[in-house]
Amino acid sequence: MSTVVAVDELHRLVEAALANNGYSREHAEALTEVIAGSERDGAVSHGLHRLGQCISDVACGWVDGKAVPVVKDVAAGVVVVDAQNGYCQLAFKCGRDLFVSKVRNHGTATLAIRNSHHLAPLWPEVEDLAGAGLIALSFRSGRRTVIPWGGRRPMFGTNPMAFACPREDGSPLVWDLAASFMARGDIQIAAQKGEPVPAGAGIDTDGKQTTDPNALLKGGAQLPFGGYKGSLISFMVEVLAAAATGSMLAVEDRSTEVKGAMSANGGSLILGINPALTAGDGFAARIQLLLQELEGNGEARVPGERRHAHRAASEKNGVRVDAAAMERLKAWAGTTR
Amino acid sequence: MSTVVAVDELHRLVEAALANNGYSREHAEALTEVIAGSERDGAVSHGLHRLGQCISDVACGWVDGKAVPVVKDVAAGVVVVDAQNGYCQLAFKCGRDLFVSKVRNHGTATLAIRNSHHLAPLWPEVEDLAGAGLIALSFRSGRRTVIPWGGRRPMFGTNPMAFACPREDGSPLVWDLAASFMARGDIQIAAQKGEPVPAGAGIDTDGKQTTDPNALLKGGAQLPFGGYKGSLISFMVEVLAAAATGSMLAVEDRSTEVKGAMSANGGSLILGINPALTAGDGFAARIQLLLQELEGNGEARVPGERRHAHRAASEKNGVRVDAAAMERLKAWAGTTR
Repeated sequence: MSTVVAVDELHRLVEAALANNGYSREHAEALTEVIAGSERDGAVSHGLHRLGQCISDVACGWVDGKAVPVVKDVAAGVVVVDAQNGYCQLAFKCGRDLFVSKVRNHGTATLAIRNSHHLAPLWPEVEDLAGAGLIALSFRSGRRTVIPWGGRRPMFGTNPMAFACPREDGSPLVWDLAASFMARGDIQIAAQKGEPVPAGAGIDTDGKQTTDPNALLKGGAQLPFGGYKGSLISFMVEVLAAAATGSMLAVEDRSTEVKGAMSANGGSLILGINPALTAGDGFAARIQLLLQELEGNGEARVPGERRHAHRAASEKNGVRVDAAAMERLKAWAGTTR
Repeated sequence: MSTVVAVDELHRLVEAALANNGYSREHAEALTEVIAGSERDGAVSHGLHRLGQCISDVACGWVDGKAVPVVKDVAAGVVVVDAQNGYCQLAFKCGRDLFVSKVRNHGTATLAIRNSHHLAPLWPEVEDLAGAGLIALSFRSGRRTVIPWGGRRPMFGTNPMAFACPREDGSPLVWDLAASFMARGDIQIAAQKGEPVPAGAGIDTDGKQTTDPNALLKGGAQLPFGGYKGSLISFMVEVLAAAATGSMLAVEDRSTEVKGAMSANGGSLILGINPALTAGDGFAARIQLLLQELEGNGEARVPGERRHAHRAASEKNGVRVDAAAMERLKAWAGTTR
């Protein structure tokens, strides 16, 4: 059962739900952009699915829903934001303008966000930066759920990374991928629906590969994508997002010991590059050429295209939302029909 | 048949071979470090295997073996080096000190190398930077050999990326991977030996997956690693290494039309981060903790460890080299027994 809701109305309801459940107005706004935005873009594992988790994080006292991020201008190429144990989305917004001006003027900069929580996709951050004409990479640490290649014990988060680059006419080119074989949210959704996950997704308590999402979530572990190469990327994300931002590694996280806590206290590292300074002229023309080659190449996809098409359809026709999720949303928002 | 040669002697011979075959002393030195260094570290697909290719590139007039790189100090966070149609290794050396000082002082910088050639691994560049206390990422474009996920026509190079981070006691943690399922050099070696390549490595002229390295090299194409995720990484490397450095995309490369030419004219983008500025204190301790967790975790490997162990053994006992490759090397170096 599903229902259709207009984008604006979805936005209003999510923001009210967060504001009614322990979040400051600033946090509610920042989180709504990614939760309602994911649902709008068809990325349901990061949409309303995450709302209850965000509410639980604050209700149990694990996350500070009213935290005020502290921005530090450290150097020509470094902005550090301490999220003060709040969600990363507001920390990003607070550091964003200073970061963008550094990348524009100096050509390259790092935005290091520490002491923060993140249950959202990474594309909103890099898409925003590419919209400002910059190339952006983002790396995020998380909860200890993924084993290294050849290993037995989980020690990495799903360790997503994202990339975006601007183009002259049209939406930025954006991708966002977990260094795990599957995103955690997709495994949780499979478990809720009672559906199996593909072979390669993870192992059970005995270290054997399993397609049972429950065996994987309870006592098992996720596997990296692409064998040892994905494992190396996961290692890099752990170093960049956690160690290099002064945040806790996944192995230091204590969120699983707190009833109701859903997210690790970890870090995000975002790199920005100004192609006008590194490439000289010709960058936009080369991106155009790359697109042409992709578009005429079999079934190859332009990164971000499917999501942007879903967004355009949602803005025109409304967002199709699971009916039960909609009822929960209205209850949190204090709206009853 | 193989023979053993001391590390110093191997170095001397490779440098003489290059200097006798059209390379300036500076280029010969820079290339020798990576060719002899790869052979020493057990990375044979980047060792003597590449020497004939480098010599051919200059002999046919495709690469300028005496090119003098031009370094530009563009901004606080950007160094651009035009390799002037020479090999990238010397361009890196020429821009390296200015780049390191920018990363140290400003926290983040980009080294963009354009109009350059590269047949070597990427680890020497990032390992050097990590040895200077910095975190480094490197991206390199190449010859049109890899299809995007779902595509039919090759449009990317093998598009390697590398990562290194420093640690307090011991060698830097370093990895280097191709975004293709296999490195090109390993496929060439399989073809020379008449051995099959693993399923997933590539397709033949008809677009069917093949394990025949010759079918793959002649008219076929390579596949990305890890399905669509590796393809996205390949896309990112193309944008960063080629477009963002003002270099030619793989689809613009004309090296296959020149008899004897072995390498694309392309670009390298290197990012440096100073963890002392982004992480504050505690970075070294967290890297130590990450290592402990990796070392005690089943068969998981510490990135770079195997290569460093091979290096130590070579320095003690000499390098075991294919006998035929050694004869060719001596002929190029003008040394006969």
